[in-house]
Amino acid sequence: MAVKKPSIHDIAKAAGVGVGTVSRVLNERPNVAEATRAKVESVMEQLGYRPTFAARHIRTGRSQLFGFLTDQVTTTPFAHDLIKGAQARARQADRMLMVIDADGDDRVREQAVANLIERGVEGIVYAAMFHHEVHVPKALHEVPTVLVDCFTPNRDFASVVPDEVRGGREATERLLEEGHRRIAMVTNDVLSTGYPAAVGRLEGYKEALAEAGVPFDEALVREGSGNADSGYRWAHDLLDADDPPTAYFFGTDRMAMGAYFAFTEVGLSVPGDVSVVGFDDQHYIADALRPALTTMALPHAAMGRWAIDHLLTAPWGEDRPPPQRRLPCPIVERGSVGRAPASDAGEES
Amino acid sequence: MAVKKPSIHDIAKAAGVGVGTVSRVLNERPNVAEATRAKVESVMEQLGYRPTFAARHIRTGRSQLFGFLTDQVTTTPFAHDLIKGAQARARQADRMLMVIDADGDDRVREQAVANLIERGVEGIVYAAMFHHEVHVPKALHEVPTVLVDCFTPNRDFASVVPDEVRGGREATERLLEEGHRRIAMVTNDVLSTGYPAAVGRLEGYKEALAEAGVPFDEALVREGSGNADSGYRWAHDLLDADDPPTAYFFGTDRMAMGAYFAFTEVGLSVPGDVSVVGFDDQHYIADALRPALTTMALPHAAMGRWAIDHLLTAPWGEDRPPPQRRLPCPIVERGSVGRAPASDAGEES
Repeated sequence: MAVKKPSIHDIAKAAGVGVGTVSRVLNERPNVAEATRAKVESVMEQLGYRPTFAARHIRTGRSQLFGFLTDQVTTTPFAHDLIKGAQARARQADRMLMVIDADGDDRVREQAVANLIERGVEGIVYAAMFHHEVHVPKALHEVPTVLVDCFTPNRDFASVVPDEVRGGREATERLLEEGHRRIAMVTNDVLSTGYPAAVGRLEGYKEALAEAGVPFDEALVREGSGNADSGYRWAHDLLDADDPPTAYFFGTDRMAMGAYFAFTEVGLSVPGDVSVVGFDDQHYIADALRPALTTMALPHAAMGRWAIDHLLTAPWGEDRPPPQRRLPCPIVERGSVGRAPASDAGEES
Repeated sequence: MAVKKPSIHDIAKAAGVGVGTVSRVLNERPNVAEATRAKVESVMEQLGYRPTFAARHIRTGRSQLFGFLTDQVTTTPFAHDLIKGAQARARQADRMLMVIDADGDDRVREQAVANLIERGVEGIVYAAMFHHEVHVPKALHEVPTVLVDCFTPNRDFASVVPDEVRGGREATERLLEEGHRRIAMVTNDVLSTGYPAAVGRLEGYKEALAEAGVPFDEALVREGSGNADSGYRWAHDLLDADDPPTAYFFGTDRMAMGAYFAFTEVGLSVPGDVSVVGFDDQHYIADALRPALTTMALPHAAMGRWAIDHLLTAPWGEDRPPPQRRLPCPIVERGSVGRAPASDAGEES
């Protein structure tokens, strides 16, 4: 398709004036003779010229545009929530988003940053699809940038991430609150990755136990992989113990889903026999399980909003050291947590 | 943050020349004295002026930009695949995407189209998140537009949608191929909605049965809601029949997931006892079930690519009548389809 629109050079030629004059008319500047202005405007009308945003951009030096660059991933169910949150805040400030998915390709990433800078973006949101340390294109230092769900080794960019420790603590507190004392925890990745989502959520679990005076029992912890199969296998493994847990905290909703199948196979009901808390609040999983899963929501939309808000309100170069913001992962109460069986309710039994 | 960059007016003022002169220097036009050019370039250097894309846009009349507008939805797991497909094709042609999620709000939608046109986009992709008839902002007629996963009542825009009938037919054929004759079909919505995904997939199911000489049996069809709970309930209902089906075709993977729980509860194994085919190839569900689900993939990335390709290659106004393209929903073979029990294998028994 690609319709060729008249440029201001076409207008200038047809009106027999210079480009500068057309620019002054477009920008409503004073130093243009009235007859010339009328002539230029009439030619614009004839040629169907529609003053574009580009003219305003050049005049004001502002693109009213933010770049939104995702560093990878495809199949993530969360990318859209991030974009939505960012877009909502941008729209309030009359800005638009240019979205690029670099899909894990370093060259695409470098090129994307160069393109965004050439487009004159007022800032760039660089979003990872899971919370981890990243190495970003150097050119990001040339433009205000906020990292989302990730951070650089030396923390030289503003960054917003989920508060994994607090999320793990609150998930565990919810189970303790119902009298559970034998609470299993399946991490969402092996701990050797060092991923905050794996290490942090486990740390929160330990904090909550300590706070409640429940001794930490390593036999109740498994290192999962995040996927449903891992949840299924570890649930069966934990069920085989002499004194199986009465409650399970899974580092992902997908693992909780796998565990539901294991519980169904052995005839245990949720939450009558076992209680379950997940993590992620993943659409179509957490809300689709029977019973629907109580889980900790990853704050994707909130992180997207925070990133744009920071770009809009923090003077670039003055936000030093760059803020490293942690946002809470609120609990979403559904139907998978119940009272601990009386025999296990500790001091409440 | 919002760094104020020098505009060409700042350059003109500092260099003591007109804006037209700066524009000519920027656009490498001939009619500028060498000394003036040198002066302007030196001022640009001093002020840290970086020629932006906007200048090129004005010069060439081309924004090298496409708009990507989603008409609604939030929580869809598919939006990102659409954007990725569109972006991949746009990148090949050195174009970028401006993405807007109108989130079901008519005013946002109208405003978004106006903004995109003001930005000089070369075309707009208007994407729905499920296949249905839509009413779009009138202003879309002012710019090349392709509809994705939707269509207008009078088909006045080019449009690309999944081939629901063919998908339904091929899903059913896969089960017939294994000797199944009592094949249940649970639609992904009630038929009175008229949604192509509900009506079309059922039509494909009937076509496949007719082709195979298997009489259509209304008692094997249920109108589902698309969600897991609906799959769970209808699976139990069908299992209670005197002569229950040996195979199930669900209009969504989520319903298949619900059905897996029902099968687990009554001790039936997939695919040993019952075979299942889903629809959608929904990430984290189809691949997470035990066994992983054989399903028909919605061609989201392919639709996004097709839309941008059409904008790039079809002369606007000459693609009349606007093409209405159906893309196949390829089968994704996993582990949920097995041979029919011998007693039910019809002529093959």
